[in-house]
Amino acid sequence: MSQGQEPAFAGADWGTSRFRLWLMDRAGNVLAEKRADDGLDASRAKGFSQVLEGHLASLGAPGDLPVVICGMAGSRQGWVEAPYVHVPANPATILAAAARIPDVSRDIRIVPGLAQQGERPNVMRGEETQLLGLVHGKPGFSGLVAMPGTHSKWVYVEDGRVSRFSTYLTGELYALLAGQSILRHSIGAVAEGVDVDHPEFTAGLTTALVPGFSLLGSLFEIRAGMLLNGLTQDAAAARLSGMVIGSEASDARSKAPADIKTVQLVASGRMERLYRKALQAAGFDCETVDADDAVRKGLHAAATGLWFLL
Amino acid sequence: MSQGQEPAFAGADWGTSRFRLWLMDRAGNVLAEKRADDGLDASRAKGFSQVLEGHLASLGAPGDLPVVICGMAGSRQGWVEAPYVHVPANPATILAAAARIPDVSRDIRIVPGLAQQGERPNVMRGEETQLLGLVHGKPGFSGLVAMPGTHSKWVYVEDGRVSRFSTYLTGELYALLAGQSILRHSIGAVAEGVDVDHPEFTAGLTTALVPGFSLLGSLFEIRAGMLLNGLTQDAAAARLSGMVIGSEASDARSKAPADIKTVQLVASGRMERLYRKALQAAGFDCETVDADDAVRKGLHAAATGLWFLL
Repeated sequence: MSQGQEPAFAGADWGTSRFRLWLMDRAGNVLAEKRADDGLDASRAKGFSQVLEGHLASLGAPGDLPVVICGMAGSRQGWVEAPYVHVPANPATILAAAARIPDVSRDIRIVPGLAQQGERPNVMRGEETQLLGLVHGKPGFSGLVAMPGTHSKWVYVEDGRVSRFSTYLTGELYALLAGQSILRHSIGAVAEGVDVDHPEFTAGLTTALVPGFSLLGSLFEIRAGMLLNGLTQDAAAARLSGMVIGSEASDARSKAPADIKTVQLVASGRMERLYRKALQAAGFDCETVDADDAVRKGLHAAATGLWFLL
Repeated sequence: MSQGQEPAFAGADWGTSRFRLWLMDRAGNVLAEKRADDGLDASRAKGFSQVLEGHLASLGAPGDLPVVICGMAGSRQGWVEAPYVHVPANPATILAAAARIPDVSRDIRIVPGLAQQGERPNVMRGEETQLLGLVHGKPGFSGLVAMPGTHSKWVYVEDGRVSRFSTYLTGELYALLAGQSILRHSIGAVAEGVDVDHPEFTAGLTTALVPGFSLLGSLFEIRAGMLLNGLTQDAAAARLSGMVIGSEASDARSKAPADIKTVQLVASGRMERLYRKALQAAGFDCETVDADDAVRKGLHAAATGLWFLL
């Protein structure tokens, strides 16, 4: 811990494949950080409590420091299930449903995921905490939030309340197509690391933004482009990335009300650059919210709601 | 061979994973048949010539019987490359480009695949032979041909000439999503064998036929349906099948000229039933052409063009 300050709480993002822990003060400043590969499977084997207490001890956290956790640790396959809260839901409703770990002296809570019932069923777990942070920093916020990733979430927020959302399988589909499909011959090992300035990323975007574009009916053209036109591996990877991200951006734009001009883009690094370009090409303005920062701010907002406002 | 008839030629469909051989008379009647697992990789190891001669001998074929082959045996990774013929292409042009196996006494030819250059590059290899059979049986045919499969082909034929085509990654995408994606938890081992009468197949079709449907933005709802609504594995498989086939049918209908009402559907068995339902739901009339029959008729049409009309 820096400068001898005392932490007010610990926050953890505990997902399927990784674990991140921060000690923070009451204002949300980070005093110490730990990252580890203790995802759900590894932690279930070792014991969730042992894993968490070990990392807390390594950061010198007091034994009575409260801990708030988000992510898949709250799923049915996790530590303790924090059942989904149904949308529409405001932050107070979400936090009231946090699950408390039983039979331990430390106060440990897990933020629940969100579920949408009806014609378009949907779920999220983890992103709701980033949304808590975003809304905490923008009281009364209304608008559209894009959260790219393996399963990209597009979330409508009305006056600080999560009203509805959808999921695009973009990241997962890109990985499957690049690594497992007939296109793997065209892309090989260069699936990671698409350059936002690659002309084929732009070409893929442009193709995807033409009205009537069919992703299903266009993917094979990347294979044909390699066979007939010598499309290189990095060009094929960039084209595929532009097509799938462009397909997401185009559909999200067509479904958003016309008066929504601006999207809060929760992303970092390369992902942020690719999506910003795609969303702008689709006609959105973008305000970037750093994804890692959003998790920490969300955990701080959760701690504030759970403990500091009581 | 049946009834002591003499074969006029042998035809083989030699693909990535399987080998099928028929002895036929001059009219295209099948006199003998052999099926084997000798796909490209296995055959390359054993020697293509040895594999073919072994199967011919097992059927009692004379040493001078000519053989016509279609499929991936003519690809760059196959026996001898039969370079793509560019569309538009008529049957005579396609057959004139057949590759002859060198340095063997037997007359063995491989039918070339077709390629489309330009904005929408595309290739096929194998389906062109089914098209030769279809056109041979319908002289002067003009219309639209749907050839479902791992990579579904939609082909426009004008006055017996293949003018242009597109490819949908439908079969491959279904297999990847059902077996490798987050949806595998919802579908498990029931990915094969979707029942055309399952109400969730119809529901998936109906969803996909709504204007503005996004496959990318709808797939995750199958996962959410399992978590929230207890969607069963066979229901999830049927829903996914309806969504992907419906997405193909919907896009193909929206891109086909309005005066095209009828599709020649080259398919067999379960695949034929699923596609017929999807194409009819999208607004097409269907005339089914049995897929296995189409291959044999295509090989007969090729043999007729190569040898019997000379």
